[in-house]
Amino acid sequence: MSQTTSHTTTDTTDHEVASPSLDTAVLEEVLLGRWAETRRVSRALAAEERFHKIEGLTKEDHRERVLRQLHDLVSADAVHRAFPREFGGADSHGGNIAAFEELVTADPSLQIKSGVQWGLFGAAVLHLGTEEHHRRFLPGIMDLSVPGAFAMTEIGHGSDVASLGTTATYDPDTEEFVIHTPFTAATKRYLGNAAVDGKDAVVFAQLITDGVNHGVHCFYCHLRDDDGNTLPGITITDDGQKGGLNGVDNGRIRFDSIRVPRSHLLDRYGAVTADGAYSSPIESPGRRFFTMIGTLVQGRVSLTGASVAASKLALIGAVTYANQRRQFNASSPVQEEVIMDYQLHQRRLLPRLATTVALSFAQEKLLAKFDDVFSGADDSDENRQELETLAAAIKPVATWHALDTLQEAREACGGAGFIAENRFTTLHADLDIYVTFEGDNNVLLQLVAKRLLSDYASEFKDADVGALSRYVASQAQSTVLHRFGLRRALQSVQDTGDERRSANWFKQTEVQRELLTDRVRQMVADVAGQLRSVARKPQAEQAATFNEHQYEIINAAKAHADLLVWESFTEALEEVEHAGTRQVLTWLRDVYALTRIEETLDWYLLHGRISAQRARTLSPYINRLLARLRPLAQDIVDSFGYTADHVRMEVASGAEQERQDEAMEHHRVLRASSEAPVDEKILVKRRQQERRSQRKGG
Amino acid sequence: MSQTTSHTTTDTTDHEVASPSLDTAVLEEVLLGRWAETRRVSRALAAEERFHKIEGLTKEDHRERVLRQLHDLVSADAVHRAFPREFGGADSHGGNIAAFEELVTADPSLQIKSGVQWGLFGAAVLHLGTEEHHRRFLPGIMDLSVPGAFAMTEIGHGSDVASLGTTATYDPDTEEFVIHTPFTAATKRYLGNAAVDGKDAVVFAQLITDGVNHGVHCFYCHLRDDDGNTLPGITITDDGQKGGLNGVDNGRIRFDSIRVPRSHLLDRYGAVTADGAYSSPIESPGRRFFTMIGTLVQGRVSLTGASVAASKLALIGAVTYANQRRQFNASSPVQEEVIMDYQLHQRRLLPRLATTVALSFAQEKLLAKFDDVFSGADDSDENRQELETLAAAIKPVATWHALDTLQEAREACGGAGFIAENRFTTLHADLDIYVTFEGDNNVLLQLVAKRLLSDYASEFKDADVGALSRYVASQAQSTVLHRFGLRRALQSVQDTGDERRSANWFKQTEVQRELLTDRVRQMVADVAGQLRSVARKPQAEQAATFNEHQYEIINAAKAHADLLVWESFTEALEEVEHAGTRQVLTWLRDVYALTRIEETLDWYLLHGRISAQRARTLSPYINRLLARLRPLAQDIVDSFGYTADHVRMEVASGAEQERQDEAMEHHRVLRASSEAPVDEKILVKRRQQERRSQRKGG
Repeated sequence: MSQTTSHTTTDTTDHEVASPSLDTAVLEEVLLGRWAETRRVSRALAAEERFHKIEGLTKEDHRERVLRQLHDLVSADAVHRAFPREFGGADSHGGNIAAFEELVTADPSLQIKSGVQWGLFGAAVLHLGTEEHHRRFLPGIMDLSVPGAFAMTEIGHGSDVASLGTTATYDPDTEEFVIHTPFTAATKRYLGNAAVDGKDAVVFAQLITDGVNHGVHCFYCHLRDDDGNTLPGITITDDGQKGGLNGVDNGRIRFDSIRVPRSHLLDRYGAVTADGAYSSPIESPGRRFFTMIGTLVQGRVSLTGASVAASKLALIGAVTYANQRRQFNASSPVQEEVIMDYQLHQRRLLPRLATTVALSFAQEKLLAKFDDVFSGADDSDENRQELETLAAAIKPVATWHALDTLQEAREACGGAGFIAENRFTTLHADLDIYVTFEGDNNVLLQLVAKRLLSDYASEFKDADVGALSRYVASQAQSTVLHRFGLRRALQSVQDTGDERRSANWFKQTEVQRELLTDRVRQMVADVAGQLRSVARKPQAEQAATFNEHQYEIINAAKAHADLLVWESFTEALEEVEHAGTRQVLTWLRDVYALTRIEETLDWYLLHGRISAQRARTLSPYINRLLARLRPLAQDIVDSFGYTADHVRMEVASGAEQERQDEAMEHHRVLRASSEAPVDEKILVKRRQQERRSQRKGG
Repeated sequence: MSQTTSHTTTDTTDHEVASPSLDTAVLEEVLLGRWAETRRVSRALAAEERFHKIEGLTKEDHRERVLRQLHDLVSADAVHRAFPREFGGADSHGGNIAAFEELVTADPSLQIKSGVQWGLFGAAVLHLGTEEHHRRFLPGIMDLSVPGAFAMTEIGHGSDVASLGTTATYDPDTEEFVIHTPFTAATKRYLGNAAVDGKDAVVFAQLITDGVNHGVHCFYCHLRDDDGNTLPGITITDDGQKGGLNGVDNGRIRFDSIRVPRSHLLDRYGAVTADGAYSSPIESPGRRFFTMIGTLVQGRVSLTGASVAASKLALIGAVTYANQRRQFNASSPVQEEVIMDYQLHQRRLLPRLATTVALSFAQEKLLAKFDDVFSGADDSDENRQELETLAAAIKPVATWHALDTLQEAREACGGAGFIAENRFTTLHADLDIYVTFEGDNNVLLQLVAKRLLSDYASEFKDADVGALSRYVASQAQSTVLHRFGLRRALQSVQDTGDERRSANWFKQTEVQRELLTDRVRQMVADVAGQLRSVARKPQAEQAATFNEHQYEIINAAKAHADLLVWESFTEALEEVEHAGTRQVLTWLRDVYALTRIEETLDWYLLHGRISAQRARTLSPYINRLLARLRPLAQDIVDSFGYTADHVRMEVASGAEQERQDEAMEHHRVLRASSEAPVDEKILVKRRQQERRSQRKGG
């Protein structure tokens, strides 16, 4: 073991190796996770040229290509995994998503159009329909003879699905539902498969029978006949050119009192008898609603995984390029610097690399939870709600992270980053809408926050008034302590200002856990206290108070998401047996945790959680950690396990290295030859020196 | 004057009106600035359909369309302003850029291709050539009979122009320069007008004569004959599809020892006699180099202005939509909230609105400085360097701000934001490269930082050793003070924790100035101290120390840019006579300053500049300021003065309002009729109540 002793340049402890040997094969396996084999199969498909996006196609050509690719996926037996074995599926829910998220490397439009067909349209029939529906509809959906739309979102309602305007009114005389768009804002919009390919659709509408609105339910409807003509009463318009994903044919559908038979209600969670009586196995309308839109959870998990995969591609490109590209020669007159050696470049790329690895583990945990619930292994109400909260927390941070990483990688490659063949820009354009899809990120974070607040409230549900008062008092005391910085003062006494001791503190797993947890807990408690004070006031006043703290609430939810990601990372790395690999993962985990804390350092200072002395050492310590990770960056991105057929970026092809080598060789030969021109600057300096020595001499 | 007295909801002082009357006509004039008339003329052109971008065109069609538009600009007499009067120009440098930046509203490709032709290719001939060159080349450039490329950037060198690989070796036998690409990395790349349209080019190359390399100079070269065939020795390839700006035909050029006559050296700042003797009016090779690439300053100013214009379009779209769009009904069972009323939405849009207005004033100041230098009114060396630093500081923050604002506006409009016709995504795609163009943002910030460091060093240039020691000691003392929080402690004593008093402190112009200035000063001093300690060490060690502080240095430059923007805003608003308008601008300026301070609050806490007591009141105060600005947001974006023909977004067209009104009317009629379905939730609640009362009764 090579140990270092200097206090200022390293903070390795007795357990650490200064230059650990990362085993990329081990790391690749760790990152591939539980569904490694499925991922390998899917990656092999994604590496085939027929599935690759071609830049610059018109949207018509792109749509045709992607539809053809979907048929190819069917032929390759790649779309069946989540469906029941009796229909040729594999009942593998986690594996199914793992497979689909890998398709993003071929073309995000392919991932999304597949997701619409099998993950939304098909999954709605599977999860909301009964066996009869499965027998009638699943075969055509699975073999793509019936492309279909998932008609949930309306022009007027995206986030607030419960308020959809489309109605499905039961007519007992004919035993049919009348599906109707009562006003323009209730027009279904942004529906993949609607503009061109969709034959059928699952339509979400307010189920009304016998004068009562039973809330949003799902209906199976025909859109077009076998010749592709739109059926009477249905008006479809094309959403046209989009910012990205132009291989998906999004469109709008308006229903003019079309009629579907009673059997077309997907009635697993809410049924209507021939004479119009409504019944449901789920008594609470609220819980029933969340079950109806539960299909979206699958979409959220899939978008999260695809975002992680796209972030990996971005970093493979940017890190490889930064290890070959040279610019400016600050430290040597002969050779320019590799740009990965610049501290700023390390600051730009390596924390994003750490977060990408962190999210990779978070996605693995999310997939496992998803599989537990959807396979039925553990689909208790509590576990389902936990899954919903986990997905609602991770999807926002992962999708935003992908956009941020793609953009930074694009900029880090300069002009080359802007060329479409390097894919940063087009992946950014395609993934842009992932932050809105299947639940707007901010709306999802608000869901998370509400869950945190209600969990917090339920802690005191059964407490007597005395317990509550004591708690409030202790909270207040703690606030007073924080307010007057006594806790901080206490910490200051223990602090010697020794940078090494401070670094040793920051890298402790338990310290990180406490800092990240404490922030969530305190933020939730603070807002809960505010909300409690108006709990018995009129609705409008409660809403106003909530709104006055909305920004805090969303920040608390983000902090919670960060904590969940950190926990996934920490759990995963503790299971890695290879010491060098575990060491590198620990550094990455530390970078993830400490950059999160650095971003919100003002909060930790204001709340007395970190003393000023310690806080001052944080950024320098992060810089040293990054410098330590820098030589490992290429190995880390290589261990993502994507081949040149997945990456397909000129910046990652080695072409830059060839050009640098050629230029270097040219300069070497030139310097060796007698014809090499002298630099004027050197002449000028020489002349100045001569003049100066003349003056001195004279 | 309506005064309010509540401490918690308002912080208006005696001078302030709680609901000031903003005069949008006044604000529009203030924002139009000195070149208002020119802007109006250019906006009138930009409003014409023939100049508008059509989404979804192939790059070939888009390129053709933009070339046609350039000819239309010539016909409309819109491209001549910066050229000398004798060639039909107006010698108006500031006005010229003001006019061009408005074209971004029509199509960024149009702005950029115009910029290549007249702002780079033409301007290089104008500024680096002599009268003879003007007579020979300018007429064809101005009337677009000679489209041309600005061949500076190479595959291997974008940021470090001084190290370009292309050589121009003088051959006295034929009185020609031999232009040559000695290796692949020296191939010119990303050149607008190169792939298809360019007939000629200005080529930047190392001028070598008589065995001496005199550094980068500019040469006029022919690329294609009249039939569009590439001339012998020249190889041009198409850069292909890009992330945006596909109306510009970027390409690569490789030179195989082509020969140009001696007269084709643009020799205003460096000439070669027939027998090969070199001379220059600028003795310092460094200063000569900066003069040679001075044309880029014009580009930086133009990109800054276009970024401000694009940010304005984004906010017009997002604010208008947010004032019409409704989602969720937290405070009322009947009507949903307008999303602009959500605190989070205010946090997302209003600080960006404040920054956009701030940058509008910063651009006005930059334009004035540019005009001073380029018109010759004040082109002293010092003023030119100030212009370069100002442009290098403002261009990064403005271009990044545009991307950030376009992205946030896109997300704030949900799915609608992703439809290409709403332009957020396509403007983002087009402006993406502005952060790299004409100087990578981080490289520019490093230039700024070096200027700050050298200014700082020059303060002590003439000081004797004693003065320097005293200064260092006082610095150290101040650091000690900060380190042990004594300054903060002092402030704490004065702080009563009164929120109103704290708000009154934060909104003082001088307090903001001191906080923003102090941060730059201290950061620069800290880094300068580190660099001073290695000033006499070998080059490699100095470079390593610089690199260890690069992240800090870039942050110092950003802080400096923020300060410059703040100063522009403050100077501008003080000249506004209309009290209500000045009041609103002051609030916007406060939001700009305070959100900057909020973002870096940890720095202010760690350096004892703001006490914890005071710091705690900052975010709540910003929230209140935003709530106060919220009712004015629509008026502010309306006063940007763009018409529907500039904005061209469905989200800003009023269509959303129409849909909301229609839906509202539908619900009103339904509620009034006897057929309105009852909500199941209400029934369930009623049933629960009945059961409860039965239990109680029974």
